[in-house]
Amino acid sequence: MIKGLTTDKLKNMNIDELNILCREIRDFLIENVSKTGGHLAPNLGVVELTVAIHKVFDLPQDKLVFDVGHQSYVHKILSGRADKMDTLRQFGGISGFPKRSESEFDAFDTGHSSTSVSAALGMARARDLAGKKNNIIALFGDGALTGGEIYEAMNDAGHTKTPLTLILNDNAMSISKNVGAVSKHLRKIRINRVYFNSKRKVSGFLNKIPLIGKPIRICIEKVKSVIRRYVIATTVFEDLGFKYIGPVDGHDLKSLIDCLEYAKTEAKPVLLHVCTQKGKGYTPAEKDPSTFHGVGVFNASDGKLPPLKNSYSSQFGKTLIDIARDNDKVVAITCAMPDGTGLVEFSKLYRDRFFDVGIAEQHGVTFAAGMAASGFIPVIPLYSTFLQRAYDQALHDVCLQNLHVVFPIDRAGIVGADGETHQGVYDLSYLSTMPNMTVLSASSFAQLDSMLRYAINVHNGPIAIRYPRGNTESSFDTSDFEYGKAYVRNASSDVSIIASGRMLKRAEEISETLAKENFTAEIIELPTVFPVNEKAVTETAQKTKFVITLEDNIKSGGMGEHIAEILLSQGIVCKFKAFAFPCEPIVHGTVGELDEKYGVDTVTVSEYIIKELKNGKNQT
Amino acid sequence: MIKGLTTDKLKNMNIDELNILCREIRDFLIENVSKTGGHLAPNLGVVELTVAIHKVFDLPQDKLVFDVGHQSYVHKILSGRADKMDTLRQFGGISGFPKRSESEFDAFDTGHSSTSVSAALGMARARDLAGKKNNIIALFGDGALTGGEIYEAMNDAGHTKTPLTLILNDNAMSISKNVGAVSKHLRKIRINRVYFNSKRKVSGFLNKIPLIGKPIRICIEKVKSVIRRYVIATTVFEDLGFKYIGPVDGHDLKSLIDCLEYAKTEAKPVLLHVCTQKGKGYTPAEKDPSTFHGVGVFNASDGKLPPLKNSYSSQFGKTLIDIARDNDKVVAITCAMPDGTGLVEFSKLYRDRFFDVGIAEQHGVTFAAGMAASGFIPVIPLYSTFLQRAYDQALHDVCLQNLHVVFPIDRAGIVGADGETHQGVYDLSYLSTMPNMTVLSASSFAQLDSMLRYAINVHNGPIAIRYPRGNTESSFDTSDFEYGKAYVRNASSDVSIIASGRMLKRAEEISETLAKENFTAEIIELPTVFPVNEKAVTETAQKTKFVITLEDNIKSGGMGEHIAEILLSQGIVCKFKAFAFPCEPIVHGTVGELDEKYGVDTVTVSEYIIKELKNGKNQT
Repeated sequence: MIKGLTTDKLKNMNIDELNILCREIRDFLIENVSKTGGHLAPNLGVVELTVAIHKVFDLPQDKLVFDVGHQSYVHKILSGRADKMDTLRQFGGISGFPKRSESEFDAFDTGHSSTSVSAALGMARARDLAGKKNNIIALFGDGALTGGEIYEAMNDAGHTKTPLTLILNDNAMSISKNVGAVSKHLRKIRINRVYFNSKRKVSGFLNKIPLIGKPIRICIEKVKSVIRRYVIATTVFEDLGFKYIGPVDGHDLKSLIDCLEYAKTEAKPVLLHVCTQKGKGYTPAEKDPSTFHGVGVFNASDGKLPPLKNSYSSQFGKTLIDIARDNDKVVAITCAMPDGTGLVEFSKLYRDRFFDVGIAEQHGVTFAAGMAASGFIPVIPLYSTFLQRAYDQALHDVCLQNLHVVFPIDRAGIVGADGETHQGVYDLSYLSTMPNMTVLSASSFAQLDSMLRYAINVHNGPIAIRYPRGNTESSFDTSDFEYGKAYVRNASSDVSIIASGRMLKRAEEISETLAKENFTAEIIELPTVFPVNEKAVTETAQKTKFVITLEDNIKSGGMGEHIAEILLSQGIVCKFKAFAFPCEPIVHGTVGELDEKYGVDTVTVSEYIIKELKNGKNQT
Repeated sequence: MIKGLTTDKLKNMNIDELNILCREIRDFLIENVSKTGGHLAPNLGVVELTVAIHKVFDLPQDKLVFDVGHQSYVHKILSGRADKMDTLRQFGGISGFPKRSESEFDAFDTGHSSTSVSAALGMARARDLAGKKNNIIALFGDGALTGGEIYEAMNDAGHTKTPLTLILNDNAMSISKNVGAVSKHLRKIRINRVYFNSKRKVSGFLNKIPLIGKPIRICIEKVKSVIRRYVIATTVFEDLGFKYIGPVDGHDLKSLIDCLEYAKTEAKPVLLHVCTQKGKGYTPAEKDPSTFHGVGVFNASDGKLPPLKNSYSSQFGKTLIDIARDNDKVVAITCAMPDGTGLVEFSKLYRDRFFDVGIAEQHGVTFAAGMAASGFIPVIPLYSTFLQRAYDQALHDVCLQNLHVVFPIDRAGIVGADGETHQGVYDLSYLSTMPNMTVLSASSFAQLDSMLRYAINVHNGPIAIRYPRGNTESSFDTSDFEYGKAYVRNASSDVSIIASGRMLKRAEEISETLAKENFTAEIIELPTVFPVNEKAVTETAQKTKFVITLEDNIKSGGMGEHIAEILLSQGIVCKFKAFAFPCEPIVHGTVGELDEKYGVDTVTVSEYIIKELKNGKNQT
């Protein structure tokens, strides 16, 4: 039923047919994602909801804005992309997130949390200005409610009465279990209220209470109005000016369709509260929705995953536990990602010193600054792409005060399958704009271990440590770490390759390729990548007169530009080329595919160097 | 009474004496700020509140965290800095914001909005871990409640029950009138409730309702509990897990002290809602609190301000109105600063196309992206220092999708008296990390006019236009603007000075100084400062062999580094020096004082060039 499904066909299906469709979609999802990897559990949770949205609304004239967007697979299947699902997240294939360039059904590109209501409100106001009448829908999870931007948007939307449909997909989870007062508030709503239909029944009951005598009558009138306003209806959403509908069972198609039809008729901002189960319909994902939030390839029949490899994330978690044992000032902060950042064990061992603040990077970083100002040493591991959400807090609250906050930056550099919105290729550049900031970049697990010990126990001031997704390690012994030191990993004179982190391995490979042509490379590792060791780069440039910089970051504002400025200012005459990613959206694919596409792979760099060396490097 | 006032003396004063003190502080504030300039109206509004905090709490053992911090003058006066108030915001004098380096009474440095609860919660958790018992207080305005970070923090604080005192200073204003659903919610609380003391009376009244018969009795019990919970007590703050106290009259010392004493006894997060009048006690400021929010020097006796000069902000406002007349796709968005960014007239002329979203830069930028995705052309003027709060939204929501959003960046470069937290010297660097972004930099009002017309009517994609605080203009005729073009403002051969924006004027001055020594400078203006015109910088470098770059931005990631990388990569041999601000906290002072301090003034640059030219520029 899935392949060849059109919007028209779906709109003509009855509930029974739609329920069959939902079952087929679940099977199709499990089958496909087990081969491509991807965000399985979130999508299994929204099968009925997405089908109901496609049934009730007129997409793409009506606009559906996803929050984060990893729950858009069902939507992709329903909007003509079922036959491309086997290319999901593959190089050249369709994206794991909504993409306007991919389909007119994708109204807005997303990837980060808590942006959907802002974008949808912009579209709704644009619609009103243009005198159009289409519906605008934002679909977000309860995790998104821990991010401040969505409150900014609701605060704006609620007071101006722009028609807008917000759908809260409440599964009590972010990637891990959701936290915070609002999460508690939602739990209370879920427990205290019967599902949607009963609302009318309660109202009916209230109208039947007899009125006895005048004072009592006034009193009871008040009760009724109070109960109506507060017990039945008041939620934090109504305080923010929204019409609240719910909660509704997110796996009951009939109720969902009824509620959405009702929401469509309202000429003001509406919030529909839908309760779903993450991983619904696939036992392994229902049992362990965190693991199946985003998975690699797995065995569809039993949900077995390949054994976990060591990674920089797990190394980080192990070392931090070790450091915290001897240093009781160390505290760890996560923004809703204890699993993804390797903090689960720490959170069990040091419960008092572990803080999950929700998907709230801004708060997390300023909170860390507050702890640092009180003498603790906060360690706040974040994926590179999420740290950028707290750019101002890192600069303004941490760096200007020179506070000792440690920023382990996981997924720094190319992240692969998640693509444009998740690439960690900006952090070195944006961190280089922050006063007092130091940036380290780890080229091996052992070096990450040493760097963490230095950053926590020795350093004083803000310090970031970049490390890549996965487990690429240098073959050099890089276990030693000294602040600011440049390491000559291979001394030679034909060309200098200055690299750090994941790119040290590339430098080795390039060096091996050069060797085949009888050229040798001087490899300089800069584990302290910002600020750059001026003496070291000047010396190697003077020696070889040919400098290559290699970084897992964009060129603009990165290591290469810092080094170029140093060399040129000091009057060093040398051939120079910075290899880095361009300042453009970096698509999805494997790390190898992307290095090649953007010209920072071993072959491209080696060929360039060999050609120049053969031409005579100083003939500039 | 003010000078020589100690904490001990203040703690021993009775209400009458404290009221006298308050009057003296007001006079002192008006007298001083009329001479130094500064944030007058916010401080006049918190005189009693600050005195009450100092009376009730044991500062500095108890920690007081300000939000934004421009309302910290009274606190500075009370914590031993009265005799330095005449140096406020002056070069070498005390800061207009809290500074840990200035006094142990300043618990946390602030400048941007909505950070206080995060920092205070960090301190509170640190206190608990350290087994201490001191109080932590965050003081914020209702404007701060429009910023998402404070919700992130309250969501975190409310659910964990860490003792913490939040004080909401509610004057119904940001810098201008406050907006949004929460602002409405506060208004409702203020209108519907009598001030604090009456709360106990209502409870008393409830307890006296007679109970008649069983069903009615149950019913009335319910009424009481419902009224207690919802009518008396429920606010959005309670939904977030706080104990709410208020509202209390913020100019009634006795009530304030009572409430604070009560708040101190609570072993959980408390929110005290204080209603104040911005500008209280000074008629000109009461009448026009927006103007007296932050003022320059004025006449204390009548509140007369010197006539407004033209500025880049006013030019922006004028041009935008002109463009919007012919282009009905243009919409303007402000983050609570219609006055500061020059949008007041626009907001009156084009009400439908004007959106004030609150102090909510993240939402504002994604909201703009939503409008752009719907075919409108959003123009969102922000001060440079505030745009950095939406770094992720600009990169992730606007740039990755290559949406046509126009970012006029006011107060780009050195801002002067506001100091560290407000300097706009980072934007060129951080915007240079964003895919598809173009950055322009205006050197005259006329050029700003041309740039805006180009950015709105011609360009397609994200584009930023930097312009400085004030009215420094180049003497060249720079009214023309062509995208990407480099303008040779003076052709010569001794040295190339590459500059843009405010620094073009500096380049002229340097050129004049050089002329006295019979040297001449080639002045290249790059109105399109990112991406850099490679051909132009290469050509001038080849011609003069001596390149100076001059920018109102930090060096790291700025124009100079971009140019150095281009020159070095292309094998141009030349002398090179980048003049820019260092990547460190830039203190307060006038623009001239700071240029001099950081070595980007006319004398320093000229002397460097002359020395090098005399030495023979190519002897590297």
